[in-house]
Amino acid sequence: MSASPAVPHTTDLDPAVAVRLKRDANGLVPAIAQQYDTGEVLMMGWMDDEALHRTLTTGRCTYWSRSRSEYWVKGDTSGHVQVVKSVAVDCDGDTLLVKVDQHGAACHTGDRTCFDAGQLPVTTA
Amino acid sequence: MSASPAVPHTTDLDPAVAVRLKRDANGLVPAIAQQYDTGEVLMMGWMDDEALHRTLTTGRCTYWSRSRSEYWVKGDTSGHVQVVKSVAVDCDGDTLLVKVDQHGAACHTGDRTCFDAGQLPVTTA
Repeated sequence: MSASPAVPHTTDLDPAVAVRLKRDANGLVPAIAQQYDTGEVLMMGWMDDEALHRTLTTGRCTYWSRSRSEYWVKGDTSGHVQVVKSVAVDCDGDTLLVKVDQHGAACHTGDRTCFDAGQLPVTTA
Repeated sequence: MSASPAVPHTTDLDPAVAVRLKRDANGLVPAIAQQYDTGEVLMMGWMDDEALHRTLTTGRCTYWSRSRSEYWVKGDTSGHVQVVKSVAVDCDGDTLLVKVDQHGAACHTGDRTCFDAGQLPVTTA
């Protein structure tokens, strides 16, 4: 389902970080983007080692686009950049949490978050 | 990497909800659990259609355990239950955001969240 790089990318990711990651079959780890001050969950994207390296060192959240098979610096097209505040990996090494300052809408629909329009019916809440 | 159900499970998930989901090759969708009032991102798990159905209708967050290949009602063993407050699907249909009231620690290590011990070095923040 996911497009993977035809050739594994070379990366300058710190080996001490790389060893903590558990990647999926396509070499990717899901990355949750959260607004650092309000706590809003904005979106989820995917990172390979090099996308994580760029996120950790450029100040701009960078994903691997599975549909376009290319790196995607969030906001390069829309102007809706994500300025990186902190990054954490979870206890299993298979999920990233990136706290960002989101400029404008995170969602391509224009919504603030990708979850704004997606409420599902909970029958026991 | 992910164990998938040997046989697709039957499910009572509302077809109007099911049609909105884009599942991975194993029939799963990542589900982000967030503390409903503080906004803390607690953990990420995986749901198939039936796990989502149970989450939407039982009041208890239920995942598909990829390592054990079974349904996993969060807190059944640890007592650290997640009471479901709301569930949303993202714009692409491939990620769920479950707002919960987490009792005790979300992480099996005893940490409040699975990301507490995982800070990575950001060099430009």
